[in-house]
Amino acid sequence: MSYINDIAQSVTKVREVSPLVHCITNYVTVNDCANAVLAIGASPIMADDIDEVEDITSIASALVINIGTLNRRTIESAIWAGKKANAMNIPVVFDPVGAGASTLRNETTKKMLNEIKVSVIRGNLSEISFIAGLSVSTKGVDSSDADLDKDPVAVADSVAKLYGCTVAITGKDDIVSDGTRCVKLSNGVSMLSKVTGSGCLTSALLGAFIGAAGDGFIASCGAILTTSIAGEQAYERAAAMGTGSFHMALIDYISLMDENTMLKYAKTEVIK
Amino acid sequence: MSYINDIAQSVTKVREVSPLVHCITNYVTVNDCANAVLAIGASPIMADDIDEVEDITSIASALVINIGTLNRRTIESAIWAGKKANAMNIPVVFDPVGAGASTLRNETTKKMLNEIKVSVIRGNLSEISFIAGLSVSTKGVDSSDADLDKDPVAVADSVAKLYGCTVAITGKDDIVSDGTRCVKLSNGVSMLSKVTGSGCLTSALLGAFIGAAGDGFIASCGAILTTSIAGEQAYERAAAMGTGSFHMALIDYISLMDENTMLKYAKTEVIK
Amino acid sequence: MSYINDIAQSVTKVREVSPLVHCITNYVTVNDCANAVLAIGASPIMADDIDEVEDITSIASALVINIGTLNRRTIESAIWAGKKANAMNIPVVFDPVGAGASTLRNETTKKMLNEIKVSVIRGNLSEISFIAGLSVSTKGVDSSDADLDKDPVAVADSVAKLYGCTVAITGKDDIVSDGTRCVKLSNGVSMLSKVTGSGCLTSALLGAFIGAAGDGFIASCGAILTTSIAGEQAYERAAAMGTGSFHMALIDYISLMDENTMLKYAKTEVIK
Repeated sequence: MSYINDIAQSVTKVREVSPLVHCITNYVTVNDCANAVLAIGASPIMADDIDEVEDITSIASALVINIGTLNRRTIESAIWAGKKANAMNIPVVFDPVGAGASTLRNETTKKMLNEIKVSVIRGNLSEISFIAGLSVSTKGVDSSDADLDKDPVAVADSVAKLYGCTVAITGKDDIVSDGTRCVKLSNGVSMLSKVTGSGCLTSALLGAFIGAAGDGFIASCGAILTTSIAGEQAYERAAAMGTGSFHMALIDYISLMDENTMLKYAKTEVIK
Repeated sequence: MSYINDIAQSVTKVREVSPLVHCITNYVTVNDCANAVLAIGASPIMADDIDEVEDITSIASALVINIGTLNRRTIESAIWAGKKANAMNIPVVFDPVGAGASTLRNETTKKMLNEIKVSVIRGNLSEISFIAGLSVSTKGVDSSDADLDKDPVAVADSVAKLYGCTVAITGKDDIVSDGTRCVKLSNGVSMLSKVTGSGCLTSALLGAFIGAAGDGFIASCGAILTTSIAGEQAYERAAAMGTGSFHMALIDYISLMDENTMLKYAKTEVIK
Repeated sequence: MSYINDIAQSVTKVREVSPLVHCITNYVTVNDCANAVLAIGASPIMADDIDEVEDITSIASALVINIGTLNRRTIESAIWAGKKANAMNIPVVFDPVGAGASTLRNETTKKMLNEIKVSVIRGNLSEISFIAGLSVSTKGVDSSDADLDKDPVAVADSVAKLYGCTVAITGKDDIVSDGTRCVKLSNGVSMLSKVTGSGCLTSALLGAFIGAAGDGFIASCGAILTTSIAGEQAYERAAAMGTGSFHMALIDYISLMDENTMLKYAKTEVIK
């Protein structure tokens, strides 16, 4: 049983459907998120005021909540948007940036997961481990070395079952589990951690994929492979120039991503 | 009667005068707006706190209000800034991003136009049609197909007369009308809609042009042609690389824009 | 007595230590700040809510406060973060963007300097002159010509003694003084003022340098030379293409910066 055909076809699906993706996200990487969503053929809308989030979520095909620069105002907006999405069966992607790094992020993460039914949680091993309730040491918003000896498959699986959703842990290898299905994805280059936003834009892309096709597991694989294969291509063309050129090339290759490229380069290993 | 000489000379004027442009704009494309304003030879200042917007508007040559990521706090700030600009005869450019997409955007758009005398409104056909009071179906912040059968000349003309200002509708072709004069501009490439912010940066450029020369009609043409001609040049150099390279090249060609380039490439058709 | 060996070695130190830098900064150039911090080998975290800034500062090696798009909410957060940093002996870098341009910026600048013990103040001559209490005329957030006849060495020296910190004035030449030591740095190109954020990213880099090595004077020189030498290299490769390419190349060369490059290209003149 391999999932690669479904995953690759999901790229075509995004370009055909061109879903509207409502992102409530941080101001650091929001431009990359918008450009990545456009590059994969979908349409982004960023709106975070409590007076309009329900209206905007209503017309969207997916909602992406990213707590990278959370504040009291936008936490409240995100929860309202999430509840509206739940009421309308619009899928919700949750990116718990920096969970484990501050009490506010920890409590917000718990609150989001208690009050909103999410379709996908995407984060690094530190963040997802925090959610798993495992002991966790976090270095800001990047994954800490202390977490690297945890078994990401077990962590992903337990969180997927706990919240009845898909969990995507991105890192050197990426693990995607929905509790039933589980896959390891092995594309990507370490330079992706040398530009800000590769995680955030993957979550935004996830909104595009799940908005077009609905299956959180396949959507997670599609979004992660898009970033990591584009990252490999960007590395080949631009790494010697520096991280600025790599960053630009990453968006380039997302805009060129298609079914055949994904079939050709994807390194996937089915775990279950 | 052609306007092209005045329009082309306005580029030179911006570079000579180097006006300070106060932008109250969204956090998605704000970096592009600032870089575009610098690229055309003007100076941007972003400030959105109610405690300082009047001070900042006072020292600026133009105010640009963009509601792309509006919120209660910045709506209030924008109105104060707008009133200060009116009191001091500083021109105001208004970009009603996503008008039609949420009650908040609709009411804010109406409120802005009621409380502030604007010199130019720039938007896509959906947004300007909303202002015209025509029935409108909006897909997030992008122009929806349902609006494409409306006659943009009639829409621009009616809104220009309604508010006594210049109206610029950007799209495949661009229409600029001040009620008396009207022109169709036909430069640009569809890839401009595949990077976020080409509309926003045109509005920011408009602040630079109107701040330097004062005539909203000529300024609108100058700003739109700058983006669309630079877009064509960027497309030629970078389209095959992808949308990241195109995005960077767009800023490149804005920074290289001059009177002769505009005279050479501008496709304008005088309607009246 | 030359400082160049210590300065050059500080680049290596940053890459070895990889300090976490907490930035409370503006939304215009925040993406460049994050990418510059990553490019020099450190780790950025942006967090500005009052409910978490103390937690985030506690785990950081340096705090950078930049008032480019200040508002009531983030001013308060920055002060709390600064006090926490002081309590824990974490160095604070202060970038008084636009000081002199509005009452809010003036009062916030004074308040920050009264309530927080800062290690480094970095700004242009207008901003630092405002702090020096000299008469000052400011054109938005850029340095005004009227300030250019002030003696930056005297200004830097007086502010350094007044606040017991290092003062870095960036401009055509850059002056760094801690009251005892003073150096003039003469790298850089004028195109750096044609992209937004070269000042902000230097302040963010400064957080990386001071977080790794602790000496505000050496850290200021390291950060400024990184930006200005990378600027020269970017200019050589990309200036003819335009400011978009230059901007990208600037990040490229920051990511390639090392001890030898700095030793080879740095133009420093010891004043005392």
